[in-house]
Amino acid sequence: MSLKTLSSQMLPAIESELQKQVARLSQPRTAVYYEMLTYHMGWTGEGAGPEATGKRIRPLMVLLCAAASGGDWQAALPAAAAVELVHNFSLVHDDIQDNSDKRRGRPTLWTKWGMPQAINAGDGLFVLSNLAVTDLAENYPADLALRTARVLHETCLDLTRGQHMDIAYEDRLDLDEEDYWPMITGKTAALLAGCCQMGAILGGAAPVAEKAYHDFGLALGLAFQMQDDILGIWGDEALTGKSAASDLLEGKKSLPVLYGLGKNGPFAARWKSGPITPAEVQVVAQTLAEEGASDYAQEKSKEWTEKALTSLAAANPQGQAGAAMRELADKLLGRQA
Amino acid sequence: MSLKTLSSQMLPAIESELQKQVARLSQPRTAVYYEMLTYHMGWTGEGAGPEATGKRIRPLMVLLCAAASGGDWQAALPAAAAVELVHNFSLVHDDIQDNSDKRRGRPTLWTKWGMPQAINAGDGLFVLSNLAVTDLAENYPADLALRTARVLHETCLDLTRGQHMDIAYEDRLDLDEEDYWPMITGKTAALLAGCCQMGAILGGAAPVAEKAYHDFGLALGLAFQMQDDILGIWGDEALTGKSAASDLLEGKKSLPVLYGLGKNGPFAARWKSGPITPAEVQVVAQTLAEEGASDYAQEKSKEWTEKALTSLAAANPQGQAGAAMRELADKLLGRQA
Repeated sequence: MSLKTLSSQMLPAIESELQKQVARLSQPRTAVYYEMLTYHMGWTGEGAGPEATGKRIRPLMVLLCAAASGGDWQAALPAAAAVELVHNFSLVHDDIQDNSDKRRGRPTLWTKWGMPQAINAGDGLFVLSNLAVTDLAENYPADLALRTARVLHETCLDLTRGQHMDIAYEDRLDLDEEDYWPMITGKTAALLAGCCQMGAILGGAAPVAEKAYHDFGLALGLAFQMQDDILGIWGDEALTGKSAASDLLEGKKSLPVLYGLGKNGPFAARWKSGPITPAEVQVVAQTLAEEGASDYAQEKSKEWTEKALTSLAAANPQGQAGAAMRELADKLLGRQA
Repeated sequence: MSLKTLSSQMLPAIESELQKQVARLSQPRTAVYYEMLTYHMGWTGEGAGPEATGKRIRPLMVLLCAAASGGDWQAALPAAAAVELVHNFSLVHDDIQDNSDKRRGRPTLWTKWGMPQAINAGDGLFVLSNLAVTDLAENYPADLALRTARVLHETCLDLTRGQHMDIAYEDRLDLDEEDYWPMITGKTAALLAGCCQMGAILGGAAPVAEKAYHDFGLALGLAFQMQDDILGIWGDEALTGKSAASDLLEGKKSLPVLYGLGKNGPFAARWKSGPITPAEVQVVAQTLAEEGASDYAQEKSKEWTEKALTSLAAANPQGQAGAAMRELADKLLGRQA
């Protein structure tokens, strides 16, 4: 019960730190700007509440890694807020780039306040993450705060790189599995790796352990994403809550799809001839599985799960936080009993 | 000749530092992303060259302030690059928000590579500015680098606040002069204030002088903007290179316009009835002048010019860089013989 106990302490502290960071915008002339951010963060407006905030996995990981490597998680709260603000900045811009009108079941910022203001609100969340991370200097020596900030910025560079590839892939049919890794590493895994590394730095981990924490986050992110990719095509609708094979309908460039495109067989031929319709989606999913995409993605996901667990063992997280990290990893990797 | 001599050394160093910072993106899979940034910075693509880079006034100001307060300007180069990257990030997003298809006479990023990639490229320039400012730790103690980074981030928060107001004003007719100051302070003056303050910090200025440098930049930015506002309506086409009264045609919420709206006279009535056409623009400009907007803007510009000069005297910049700062201020404030 380590994870439950710890997260019941950490999650409210994260929320309160996030609210403190975003409150910098609470000024008379920018009331609407502030409202946009509190709405997006899930605190205000229609549908506000736990469903709208997201799970705060990334900041939780920062705090768990800080505590598990011997530090005080409370002191690391500004870093936890910073990674969650980065994540949310990327979501706000992503929703504009993807033309998505819903996020966590609620209308997206750009549909409510228009594209120009939504771009600016995303920029604002990004600025707030920069300010949050420099707040670390209140609790840590300046060089440690700066090194943590640097890891955050490098992570953000990876994020924009992944995002660039993701957008560029939209119009491309000449893709294969090789194109998957750099894109998904930047878009998804880099931020989780950054979270674990930032926590380790603030917890005072030695360089070798710091690298193990980083590698754990990276492998965890990749393994988790691949499971999501598999569920998005062959998942049980009742369990996933999404309509079956929805990723195929949306044309998402997931690992199975890119593997299938690389095979250049019947699946690739069908994919290249135009959008897949709900009527045929089960047949196409079946074709893709027969070409080996499901087995391949399972195998890769297992491979990265093993890597995550090896790195976790090397990081050797301590105490209650260490136990909670192992529990969280098992949960995210779908290994719970 | 201090300014000419110094800027002939500083400008190539700024360009080279900027190129070094942006080169972080030069990787095989993100070649197009890198190309977008080098194009925007004015280094590559059609129309590349000095006309396309802009004047690099902001980084120049960082270096001059660092040198004039007793520091080594070369050590401050990462901060100079950071402010120019911030400026350019804001331009890339601004062009999307304003639907502008030209920037410094060349097609804007979003018209060439599409809106989603252009948002991401703007985000990328922002990340690069964060990385650049942390590079200061190579030349300065960590606490000084962190304090400089903090000033940059606070400045960026002001920028997004100003941008929020600017966008929000587009659909509003109930504006007056009071609405001008917070918007233009955030959008224009805050970054120049930040440049001067960052330079002063890195040059080792005492707190009182640091504040004077900051206040100088702020007042300079405001005074300069007001002159630009005046020229945008009553400027001599032959001198400004813009068509006369172009700000009225574009519906720009400049100081004279907001003053006129506050007067609620014939100008305000005409403004509120719909876009102003080229055929009537001279008459409308004349009406606005008769209501006192030109005299008022001149008076305010003079007031802020005086404040800029008072703060400059208080900052008491030293040596060749100090002389160059005075020369640059005179130039920007239109005071040269």
